[in-house]
Amino acid sequence: MRRAPLLTFAALVAVAPASGARAADALPSWNDGPAKRSIVCFVKRVTTPGKEFVPEPERIATFDNDGCLWAEQPMYFQAFFIFDRIKTLAPQHPEWKDKEPFASVLKGDVKSALAGGEHALIEMAMATHAGVTTEEFDKVVTDWITTAKHPKTGRLYTEMVYQPMLELLAYLRANGFKTFIVSGGGIEFMRPWAERVYGIPPEQVIGSSIKTRFELRDGKPVLVRLPEINFIDDKAGKPVGIQMHIGRRPIAAFGNSDGDLQMLQWTAAGPGARFCLYIHHTDAGREWAYDRQSPIGRLDKGLEEAQARGWTVVDMREDWNRVFPFEK
Amino acid sequence: MRRAPLLTFAALVAVAPASGARAADALPSWNDGPAKRSIVCFVKRVTTPGKEFVPEPERIATFDNDGCLWAEQPMYFQAFFIFDRIKTLAPQHPEWKDKEPFASVLKGDVKSALAGGEHALIEMAMATHAGVTTEEFDKVVTDWITTAKHPKTGRLYTEMVYQPMLELLAYLRANGFKTFIVSGGGIEFMRPWAERVYGIPPEQVIGSSIKTRFELRDGKPVLVRLPEINFIDDKAGKPVGIQMHIGRRPIAAFGNSDGDLQMLQWTAAGPGARFCLYIHHTDAGREWAYDRQSPIGRLDKGLEEAQARGWTVVDMREDWNRVFPFEK
Repeated sequence: MRRAPLLTFAALVAVAPASGARAADALPSWNDGPAKRSIVCFVKRVTTPGKEFVPEPERIATFDNDGCLWAEQPMYFQAFFIFDRIKTLAPQHPEWKDKEPFASVLKGDVKSALAGGEHALIEMAMATHAGVTTEEFDKVVTDWITTAKHPKTGRLYTEMVYQPMLELLAYLRANGFKTFIVSGGGIEFMRPWAERVYGIPPEQVIGSSIKTRFELRDGKPVLVRLPEINFIDDKAGKPVGIQMHIGRRPIAAFGNSDGDLQMLQWTAAGPGARFCLYIHHTDAGREWAYDRQSPIGRLDKGLEEAQARGWTVVDMREDWNRVFPFEK
Repeated sequence: MRRAPLLTFAALVAVAPASGARAADALPSWNDGPAKRSIVCFVKRVTTPGKEFVPEPERIATFDNDGCLWAEQPMYFQAFFIFDRIKTLAPQHPEWKDKEPFASVLKGDVKSALAGGEHALIEMAMATHAGVTTEEFDKVVTDWITTAKHPKTGRLYTEMVYQPMLELLAYLRANGFKTFIVSGGGIEFMRPWAERVYGIPPEQVIGSSIKTRFELRDGKPVLVRLPEINFIDDKAGKPVGIQMHIGRRPIAAFGNSDGDLQMLQWTAAGPGARFCLYIHHTDAGREWAYDRQSPIGRLDKGLEEAQARGWTVVDMREDWNRVFPFEK
């Protein structure tokens, strides 16, 4: 009797060889273990006709981005973008030489630049993300993301995505799921490359944003980006962003930090079969190891709640036989 | 030479009988004329391999709702909902008996209730749309929309949708388009029934909204609707809402009032083949006839610009052989 869950999983695979085989092949970077099994079992439950079946339009899956789909150490990648933008824009802003946090960025002193915490980061984001049209900003991001390199690996940031998560996104979509990003990062920072890298189109990207204003410039309509916060898509903001953009509660949610906890709670609280997963960064060799004490991607309360509720926790070192696509 | 456009259309149908035939059959409520031909010709252009071909993910079409997909006279249907909610909630608000605009609504004096203009309407919307959870509000809307009847026709409001537009939505989707609603109406007022009535899922509905707040109530997560405006999706707000939700410029946009003008301008200004269409309410017999002077759904500047730019203008009386699904 104690092996019932395992037997159930085996039975499911046995009675539906096609689907089971597809599932096994679809997630080759996942080692056989409880995390992978919980994913395959959940997908089987909601796609098999019967009591737990979920119609395709309701198969909504939401994914955090930083630390969940791509890496986030030693600093959120968007922060590197902000610093690079400050350096690029500095000639137009002579006042930055004597004004914090800009002065520290220009001196290459990241630690001092970030000493002001969230407030300093928001000030820098505003100064570098606003004042241009949406089309101009799209081009700035596209140029940066296709050329800038990660300080540790020397790789493009879009190469530092998790191979097992790319497989998971594709596997869910092959099973009729619609996949969304729900990130604290900037919505217009992710959209220019999310479709190419993750297969997630712009209308399925949810993130933090600044306001925009419609204008006619010499008769040509533009949307101008304003230095004013519109929405912060983090913590309790994530369920709000989900409702605003999707209008339907996800049946599966994937995160890696306390900033994702409310999204997972909101997902778990709906009726029928539900799936919540936390990625635990345990792999100091291939990636990074951090959790309760980390200023970036802290996972503390979330880990408690995952254990208490029986959510899936991915042990990156144990569960993934490959982290990045460029390995091997 | 003067008949070139017509010949081009005939040639397109002739060289592609399958697609042409499907198109002709897919829009039976549209009379053969310039409006129908312009639609079919545009779809042909962007779906045929060649210079004007648009890949499926970029085939975004946006539709206004009031007066474009369903009727809006003698008053926006959501206003009837607001008035009914005020009557239902009145026992919990004894102060409304002496407080305008609520007092006039309770006396059945719609004209006085609306004398305060937009400000009065927003005040009533707040009082009736906030203070409940998103799930509770969904149920209130669903109950109302499945029972309330239009004062003139005695029909359910969801029966007062335009048959030609239902056909157009289906025709575009059959040709790889993703269809969105972009309406000044409440986003959460439309979502509970838009999928059933229009085939448009909640995540493709954009509208005006109030703020919500995430809360744990006895450990159960809820989103509480707050009496605070989040976004007004009208006029210059429409391109802003489109960018926020879709993140990609539509290639086709459909409206019927000056409130849609900026959406059409934004759509028209992109590169490649573009399609903008205004519905002109010219049918006092089967529907209503109104345009430049109407307080509801005014079409004045839009009509000028449509004529100047060669956008398609649907003459409802001439172009539609059927207006509502219940006719005949």
